[in-house]
Amino acid sequence: MSEDATRQDAMTQQTTAEELAQTVEAAHEAFLKGRSATPQTRAEWLESVASALEADAEALIQVAARETHLSEPRLTGELRRSVFQLRLFAEEIRAGEHLDATIDHADPEWGMGPRPDIRRVNVPLGVVGVFGASNFPFAFSVAGGDTASALAAGCAVVHKGHEAHPELAVLTAAALVRGLEAAGAPAGLFALVTGREAGTELVKHPLVKAIGFTGSTAGGRALMDLAAKRPEPIPFYGELGGINAVVVTPSAWLERRDEVISEYVGSFTLGMGQFCTKPGLLFVPAGEDVELQEPLEEALRGVAGHSLLTGHLAAGYAQSVEHVSSRPGVRVLVPGSFDEVPQPTVLVADASEAFSDPELLRREMFGPASLVLRYADGEELLRLVGLLEGQLTTTVQGTASDVGQDSTDELTQLLAERSGRVLWNQWPTGVTVSYAQHHGGPYPATSSNTTSVGTAAIRRFLRPVAYQGWPEAALPEALQDANPWHIPQRVDGVWHLPEAAEGAAE
Amino acid sequence: MSEDATRQDAMTQQTTAEELAQTVEAAHEAFLKGRSATPQTRAEWLESVASALEADAEALIQVAARETHLSEPRLTGELRRSVFQLRLFAEEIRAGEHLDATIDHADPEWGMGPRPDIRRVNVPLGVVGVFGASNFPFAFSVAGGDTASALAAGCAVVHKGHEAHPELAVLTAAALVRGLEAAGAPAGLFALVTGREAGTELVKHPLVKAIGFTGSTAGGRALMDLAAKRPEPIPFYGELGGINAVVVTPSAWLERRDEVISEYVGSFTLGMGQFCTKPGLLFVPAGEDVELQEPLEEALRGVAGHSLLTGHLAAGYAQSVEHVSSRPGVRVLVPGSFDEVPQPTVLVADASEAFSDPELLRREMFGPASLVLRYADGEELLRLVGLLEGQLTTTVQGTASDVGQDSTDELTQLLAERSGRVLWNQWPTGVTVSYAQHHGGPYPATSSNTTSVGTAAIRRFLRPVAYQGWPEAALPEALQDANPWHIPQRVDGVWHLPEAAEGAAE
Repeated sequence: MSEDATRQDAMTQQTTAEELAQTVEAAHEAFLKGRSATPQTRAEWLESVASALEADAEALIQVAARETHLSEPRLTGELRRSVFQLRLFAEEIRAGEHLDATIDHADPEWGMGPRPDIRRVNVPLGVVGVFGASNFPFAFSVAGGDTASALAAGCAVVHKGHEAHPELAVLTAAALVRGLEAAGAPAGLFALVTGREAGTELVKHPLVKAIGFTGSTAGGRALMDLAAKRPEPIPFYGELGGINAVVVTPSAWLERRDEVISEYVGSFTLGMGQFCTKPGLLFVPAGEDVELQEPLEEALRGVAGHSLLTGHLAAGYAQSVEHVSSRPGVRVLVPGSFDEVPQPTVLVADASEAFSDPELLRREMFGPASLVLRYADGEELLRLVGLLEGQLTTTVQGTASDVGQDSTDELTQLLAERSGRVLWNQWPTGVTVSYAQHHGGPYPATSSNTTSVGTAAIRRFLRPVAYQGWPEAALPEALQDANPWHIPQRVDGVWHLPEAAEGAAE
Repeated sequence: MSEDATRQDAMTQQTTAEELAQTVEAAHEAFLKGRSATPQTRAEWLESVASALEADAEALIQVAARETHLSEPRLTGELRRSVFQLRLFAEEIRAGEHLDATIDHADPEWGMGPRPDIRRVNVPLGVVGVFGASNFPFAFSVAGGDTASALAAGCAVVHKGHEAHPELAVLTAAALVRGLEAAGAPAGLFALVTGREAGTELVKHPLVKAIGFTGSTAGGRALMDLAAKRPEPIPFYGELGGINAVVVTPSAWLERRDEVISEYVGSFTLGMGQFCTKPGLLFVPAGEDVELQEPLEEALRGVAGHSLLTGHLAAGYAQSVEHVSSRPGVRVLVPGSFDEVPQPTVLVADASEAFSDPELLRREMFGPASLVLRYADGEELLRLVGLLEGQLTTTVQGTASDVGQDSTDELTQLLAERSGRVLWNQWPTGVTVSYAQHHGGPYPATSSNTTSVGTAAIRRFLRPVAYQGWPEAALPEALQDANPWHIPQRVDGVWHLPEAAEGAAE
């Protein structure tokens, strides 16, 4: 077959249960071969994958643009982000931060009675199943955060490709495999599978030890339940999306309403509203609809549209907007459209409607639509926030005069209780990959207390093992007193940092 | 009612579903009041509980001895351990280690595009439900590890008392509540409930955000499934026990067989074998039964017995020994007894029997019995170890000549893959509370990748929240640049340790 025909075949092929089992077994073999690689070696694998993706950037972006309708500049930025992520994770594991190396020397005087020599280090879980999302074809798909963090941890990855970008999935997987191979990683450490059956078999396979998932609450919950029902239940790290409520304080509304509205429009229409962090809900002080309508229409005039990711999503989007529009008390403030290239829609209601119909606070409209809720006073606002379910993010748009007020503190506390990330005078779309990032949040935003973005995501795919009484020569390198890997070690309760990693003492 | 009558009443009372709901709601209120306490204040709460337990030590130990049949010296040591644990956790949270404070300043040059100011800190989950075990009436019960770690994290605790020591549960809870009260903690931060119905309602209550459990695999799995089926699933941290296989290498068997046998007997009969870390399986090189029988009988002569914890456990113990004894190929090497005070039992089989009957490697006998499996050679041993399920601990008894051998490395790797803790020339019973301890292990040993012993146990009851773009004055103290709590902060990827916590740089 020609190369094109091979690719065509790979795209449309559905992995059978038997093929899935073979792929997982091969991944497990690769995991066994690869797990004792030093952090230095594994970092080189990740960097080699980053280079392979960069080398194929042009072709990847071209195919992604065709399959997803996303713009080339957006896709270029997203690929850059994914490549950066691999290199950042390489740095992180080279530093040994993820190992959490902890050494307690024997101590005959230990308060509860003599303490043996005991040392703990994190080890990789095994084969990880990853389900990519449609809306970030690079950052949350084949070579996205779950894959990068699982490989960084030392796991093997079997990735179930998303049907929204089948050709891109095959191309990306090829670059990834080529990168791993070039750096000498064991064959089979990463593999792509396709089709619904492969997905469920992946969650059920006994050699699969964790799942990373980005997608809808319904789809995620079904797979999560499957993971929980296994003879050996496994962790299911699902990023299931959310509403991302934004609260505008009265003073911010007074001081910079037009600016807030313009930024809100920019955020909820970004990528045609197909972000898990899209602000789907804006709480503003009560007032006349007309005050809102004009600046909204003004801001929306600048938005360039494009088709949604898939016809399936477009249908679901139209349905959800119709559903929310038809709730009692909801008015259409800016009527959008549901054409091939949809025009954004803004709905509005009095906040008090949500007391009898909390669905208003909970129904995600995955596309360029958002709901404005007008609150009568601070008390009503707090009551509303109390009804919010778990969120990836929540945001306060405030002013300097709000800082330090009890009401602001109470609001922030209530929001933090329900969120993975709380923002002040910024917008939730755009999730930086860094040390402090937490892309998580209480259920139904996610299915665990972990993050799927940032260096902390690596920890999800590790588990601790303690070694008691072992002679130095038989200990894993990370736990040797000589510290041959020059990593941070907590020794008898006190952190010892290698020189390069040592910050200034206070 | 007299004080005695009140206590009697509390002991036999079964918490109704309605009472359970009230208790959880009160605990939630207490959590809301208490969560913003500084680590310093919370540390004082823990220390006050420690002092209250010490003040009541005599009465507690007396009641525990009567209800559990465990010896006073053992109970004295166990209470000391529990008190020590509270003080160690107080120190740990005062140091701020559990907060994992991470600060990324805004960085316009960040590789994937400009980075906003983003900071992450751990916050407590809310109300935690704890199920205590029967076999450690102090260390894994009312004032045990799960309670101590959840309170240290800033959570409230509703503890479902174990019916094996009802009076002790009430007494311990009273001391605990008195300790919290004396230090000014919010009322309701800890509460005791009793009865099976209260247990299931506790797992199902929407305000309960995590479960800590120590007990059997069957009981744990049922509650775990309940936690997974909730509308909002919650983490279930179950310590479910295990077999704790011990491997004796040929050279150790040659060099110090009698010593190994004597230590083995000491470990598997400790506390009448009612330890989750009891060595239930000893792999030794093939040979004649008589070589084993004599030193075993010799060592067993020194063991002083007592009644098992409950009649229910005694019946289950007898049944499990009968079950294993009757498998094909299993011989009774030392016939014990199943009287009120049981005599220890040792069974033996050729290791190869386990290939056709892996049940031999998997059936826990909770009491003073253990199974010796004789392996023909190194290859057979590795195959056998490959059949082990997840274990809390595994152990190698070896010699200096084994260290650095490929076969030892392969064995250790296989054991570590299946264990939470791997020991060298020590015995698994006795679990120190320290920084490096990991009391966990793959399913069915536990239901998660976390530890229920040691300072790392605190992390189970926390979740991260990121703050993006907040002014310094509105940030949680842990995330302020000024670092008013003097805790470790990772700033722009580099750890900054307060002076007291700073170790020597390499």
